[in-house]
Amino acid sequence: MNEHLLIEAVSPAVDGGRYPAKCIAGETVTLSADIFRDGHEVIRAQVRWRRADGPSDAWEINSLSPQGNDRWAANIVPEAPGDHLFAIDAWTDVFGTWLEDVGKKVAVGLEVSSELLQGLELVDVARQRTSNDSGALQALWDALNSALPEDALAMVQAPVVHTLMDRSVPHHDLRSSDNYRLIVDRPRARFGAWYEMFPRSQGRQTVRASTLREAANRLSDIRDMGFDVVYLPPVHPIGKTFRKGPNNSLHAGERDPGCPWAIGSLAGGHTAIDPELGTLDDFAAFVQAARDQKLEVAMDFAIQCSPDHPWVCEHPEWFCHLLDGTIKHAENSPKKYEDVYMVNFDTYDKASLWNALRDVLLFWIEYGVIIFRADNPHTKPFAFWEWVLGEIRAQHPEVIFLSEAFTRPKPMKALAKLGFTQSYTYFIWRTHAAEIRDYVNELAYSGMQHFFRPNFFTNTPDILPEILQTGGRPAFKLRAVLAATLSPTYGIYSGFELCENAAVPGKEEYSDSEKYEIRVRDWHAPGNIRHFMTKINRSVSRTPPCNTSKTLRFSFLTMIRFWRTVNAAVTTS
Amino acid sequence: MNEHLLIEAVSPAVDGGRYPAKCIAGETVTLSADIFRDGHEVIRAQVRWRRADGPSDAWEINSLSPQGNDRWAANIVPEAPGDHLFAIDAWTDVFGTWLEDVGKKVAVGLEVSSELLQGLELVDVARQRTSNDSGALQALWDALNSALPEDALAMVQAPVVHTLMDRSVPHHDLRSSDNYRLIVDRPRARFGAWYEMFPRSQGRQTVRASTLREAANRLSDIRDMGFDVVYLPPVHPIGKTFRKGPNNSLHAGERDPGCPWAIGSLAGGHTAIDPELGTLDDFAAFVQAARDQKLEVAMDFAIQCSPDHPWVCEHPEWFCHLLDGTIKHAENSPKKYEDVYMVNFDTYDKASLWNALRDVLLFWIEYGVIIFRADNPHTKPFAFWEWVLGEIRAQHPEVIFLSEAFTRPKPMKALAKLGFTQSYTYFIWRTHAAEIRDYVNELAYSGMQHFFRPNFFTNTPDILPEILQTGGRPAFKLRAVLAATLSPTYGIYSGFELCENAAVPGKEEYSDSEKYEIRVRDWHAPGNIRHFMTKINRSVSRTPPCNTSKTLRFSFLTMIRFWRTVNAAVTTS
Repeated sequence: MNEHLLIEAVSPAVDGGRYPAKCIAGETVTLSADIFRDGHEVIRAQVRWRRADGPSDAWEINSLSPQGNDRWAANIVPEAPGDHLFAIDAWTDVFGTWLEDVGKKVAVGLEVSSELLQGLELVDVARQRTSNDSGALQALWDALNSALPEDALAMVQAPVVHTLMDRSVPHHDLRSSDNYRLIVDRPRARFGAWYEMFPRSQGRQTVRASTLREAANRLSDIRDMGFDVVYLPPVHPIGKTFRKGPNNSLHAGERDPGCPWAIGSLAGGHTAIDPELGTLDDFAAFVQAARDQKLEVAMDFAIQCSPDHPWVCEHPEWFCHLLDGTIKHAENSPKKYEDVYMVNFDTYDKASLWNALRDVLLFWIEYGVIIFRADNPHTKPFAFWEWVLGEIRAQHPEVIFLSEAFTRPKPMKALAKLGFTQSYTYFIWRTHAAEIRDYVNELAYSGMQHFFRPNFFTNTPDILPEILQTGGRPAFKLRAVLAATLSPTYGIYSGFELCENAAVPGKEEYSDSEKYEIRVRDWHAPGNIRHFMTKINRSVSRTPPCNTSKTLRFSFLTMIRFWRTVNAAVTTS
Repeated sequence: MNEHLLIEAVSPAVDGGRYPAKCIAGETVTLSADIFRDGHEVIRAQVRWRRADGPSDAWEINSLSPQGNDRWAANIVPEAPGDHLFAIDAWTDVFGTWLEDVGKKVAVGLEVSSELLQGLELVDVARQRTSNDSGALQALWDALNSALPEDALAMVQAPVVHTLMDRSVPHHDLRSSDNYRLIVDRPRARFGAWYEMFPRSQGRQTVRASTLREAANRLSDIRDMGFDVVYLPPVHPIGKTFRKGPNNSLHAGERDPGCPWAIGSLAGGHTAIDPELGTLDDFAAFVQAARDQKLEVAMDFAIQCSPDHPWVCEHPEWFCHLLDGTIKHAENSPKKYEDVYMVNFDTYDKASLWNALRDVLLFWIEYGVIIFRADNPHTKPFAFWEWVLGEIRAQHPEVIFLSEAFTRPKPMKALAKLGFTQSYTYFIWRTHAAEIRDYVNELAYSGMQHFFRPNFFTNTPDILPEILQTGGRPAFKLRAVLAATLSPTYGIYSGFELCENAAVPGKEEYSDSEKYEIRVRDWHAPGNIRHFMTKINRSVSRTPPCNTSKTLRFSFLTMIRFWRTVNAAVTTS
C-alpha cells in the first residue's frame, strides 16, 4: 500500500477524467501532473499510454521530468487516430535518495562510512532480486566488495549504477493514477476551411434542382478559393406532406422543392438520395470528384423525418403518438414544424432505433463520407451521442463530427465532452473587440481547449447576423479574417463570398431563404470577395502557427499584421 | 436509466470530490451545480444531505433553485460539527413541462384541446400511482372530469396541482450525483487570535522553569489582549541524551533546560508532563484556568522522540535502525538533529505505532485539549494524517488541527485536503503589497477556500522574518494589522508584542532562542504594542465581516480604514 505519494491535477483531463481529452495524431501532447510525497525522499514518475483497443498490457512508457513546483511532464506523439488511454505512475527512488543524501554530506566534508554501508546493502538487495541485470549487478557487487571505501563510493555514484538500480528493484511506494482517456483525431479535426452549399442551387435555373453531377462542377471553384471541406445540407428525398413553400410558408406549390431537413418520401429515407439530385451512384461520383480536388464532403446528420419517411410506416413505435393515435410533429412552443416528426429516443424499442441511426452513419461512411455535421444535437439525448459517437469512433476513428448546438453554454460544452469532434460556436454573434477577445480566450485557455474545438462559421442558412446585414463588404472581409485567424477551423455558407445580405426585416434570417427554394447566383458578380477569401485561405494554410496544437491560431497582434498583408496582396494584385 | 440529465461542477468540492470541503456549524453553506438536460423539458433538482455517521436514509432535503446559466443552488445550515455527506438529484418535471407548453400556446391564442387531454392523462396516471395523496388526486380527477374544458384547464394550472403532481409520481429520468463530503467544524476552526508561549518562560527567573501553575498567572493578561487561543510548545519531559544547549549548541550545561521538541525522558513520553512544569493535575488546572478566562489551550503534536523516550526501549521496532544496530537520529542532510529520533511510520508494526499516536491525542482530549498544532506534518506520511484526523474527527468533531507545514505549495495544500482544519501559510514572508494581494486572492478565491483555512502567524520561535528584524515598531504594528485583518485566524509568538527583534546575524532565527533556554521578560517594557494588539483583537472580533464564511476577512480598502481607526484609537487613548 502506498502511504506517501500523491498524483493530482492530471492534464489533459476533462472534468477530472470523466470525459476524454482530445488531441491530433502526429502532434506532440504534453501529459503532466502534480506529483509529490511527504518527507525529503527523491521520487520518479512515468506515463504509460496505449491505444484503448490494444492489449491491456501493451503500454508505451515515457519518463516524466520535473518542471518545478512539483509539476511533472512528458511529451508523447500518438501516431494514428483512435481512442487512447494514459496513466501516471510515481514511486520513491530509494537509491536516488541515498545518492542525494551522501552527496550532500560529502559536499560539506562529513564522514560517510556508515552511509556507504547502507548503499552497498541496497546494491546487494538489487543484485539478489534482479533477473535481467544479474550479471552487471554481480560484477558491480564484486568490484565494490574488493575496492577501497573511496573507490567504492565513486563507483556507486556513477550514473549508470543509478539506472541499473532503478530498473532492478520493484518500484517502492508505487502509486498509479486512474486511466485517463484521450481521443486522437486526424489533423482535419482541428484545422480546415469549410464551405456550405445547397447542391440543388449550383445550376443556372430555379425551375429544377441542379443535380449532384452538375453541382460537382463547382468543386474546382471551391477548391480554388482554398477551402478544404464542402458541407452539404441533407441530400435525402424531401417529404410532400405539409411541405413548406418559399419563405417557410405553410403551402407549397407543385414545383416548390421543399426543405431538405424534412427528410424522407416514397423515394426513401436517410439512406437514399433525393431523386431530384440523382442517385447513390451520382453521390459516390460527387464524393470522388471532391476527393480529386482534395476536398472532403461533409454530410448533414439530421435525425428527423417527414411524415412520408419510410420509418413512419415501418416503425411507428419510433415516434411519439398523441392520444388520438396521430404522430406528434416537431415543435418548439409556440412554434410548430408541421413537415417534421421527431423520433422518440425514449421508445421501448430503443435498441433498434439507436442501431438504425448508427447504421445510417455507417452507410454513408461506406460511401466515403468521413465528416458529419449533426443537426440540433442538443435536442437529442446526451446518452445517445455518447453512445453513437463511441460506436463510430471504435470502427472509424477518422470520422469527424461537428455539433450544431446553438444553445446555452453548458449543453454546448457537454456535447463536446460527450465526443463531438468540433462545435459551432457563439462567434457568429461576437462582434465587438472585447467580447471577441473574452470569447477566444475562454476557448483557448479556460480548459475548454482540451475537449471543445471551435468551428467559426460566419453565417449559416439559418443565421445572417446583424453585422453582415448592416456592415456591407467591409464587414464580410472583417468577419472572414476574424473567423479564419481566430479559430483553426472556420466556415462560410455560400453567398458569403458574394456579400449576400438581404434579410427578413427585423430578423437574422435570409429573405427568400435557400432552405425553401432553389437559388441561382452569378458566382463572379461584381463586389464579390472571392479573391480575398482565396488569399485568406491560402495564407492561413501556409502559415506555420495554424498547425500547432493551440486552439487559438493567432494573437490579435499577429492577426492585425495578417489582415494588412492580405489586404495589401489583394489591393496590389 | 437516465439518458438526458447531467450534473456537473458540484460545489463545494475539492479535486472533484476526492477530498472533503469544509464549512462551519451554524453558518450557511451554498451547495450548487450545473444541472441541465437535452431538449426543452423542464427539470427540477434537490440536494440531499445528512451526517456521515447517521442512518444512511436519514437525508434532509432542500430544493435547488435555478440561478441562471444552468447553475442551481440551495443554502443549507449544518447545525453541529461532524462529517456530513451531500448529493444532488435532478429529474425531468413532466407535468411542469406540460404546463409550460400549454401556457405558451394559450398565450398566443392557440387551441389546446389535444394538450388538455394529455394533461388529464398525466393526472390520471398520478392518481393511480400515488398512495399518500390519493384522496386529493381522486377529488381533482373527479372535478376535472365533470368540468368544462376551460375550467379544467384553469384547475390543472393551479400551483397546488403542480406540487401535488410532483410528489405523487416517481422522479422521471432521475439522475443522482455521487456523495460529496463536507467537514463541518466549530466556529473556532476559522476565526480566532492565537498566542504562542513557552510556559517555562512566564516567570521571573532564568535558573528554573516557571511551572504551569505560575504560567497560568499570565492567562488573564493574554485574555485582556483579546486572544482566543494559548498555544504551548511541547510540555512533555525533555531528553537528557544529546540535549542541546543555548543557541542550539551541541553541549548542554547541567542547568540547561533543553529543547521541548526533544520529547521523552525517564519521566515519560508523549502522555507525560515535564516535571519542571508540574504534573498532569497541574496541566488540567492550567486548562481549567484558561477556560475560566474563555481561552482555549492548543497543544503541540510533535511526533519525534529523544533517545530517552520510553518508546525507544519499549518499541525499538518503531524506529529506523542503522546496520550497526543503532537508531538513526533525525537529519535533513547535511543538518543533523542528534537529540531527536524520528519514528519509522513504515515499520512492520505500523498498526500499533499509528494507534499509539492516535491514543496520545485521545489522552490529551480527555484532559480538555481540543486544539492541536501538528509539528512538521509534511515529513510524516500523508496516509497517516488522513487516517488519524479521520479517527479523531469521528469521535471528537470539535477538535481542531493546525498544520505547521512550511513546505512547498502542493504538499502544504495536500495536508489541508487530507483533513487539517487550518494551516500555517507563507504570509510570514509576504511583505510587498502586490505579493500580499496575490496571495490573499489565491487563498480566498482560487478554490483553496473550500479546504484550506489560513492561520496567519506573524512570527514563530523558528522564524523572525526580515521585515520584523529591520522594520522596528511600525513593522510590528503593520504585520499585526495585516495578519489580523487578512485572515480570519492569525497568531503571534510571545515577544511580538514587545517588538523583540534580535536575530542571529544573516538568519531568520531569534538570537538566544527560547527553544533552548528560559527567558524572562518585562511584559510592560517601554515600546510595547500591547495596547495596539488589544485594540486590533477587540475590534476584529466585534466587526461583523469577520464572522462570515469568507476566507478573506476584509478588502484592502476596509483594511486601510480599519488601520486608521485602530491607530486613531490608540493615539487618542
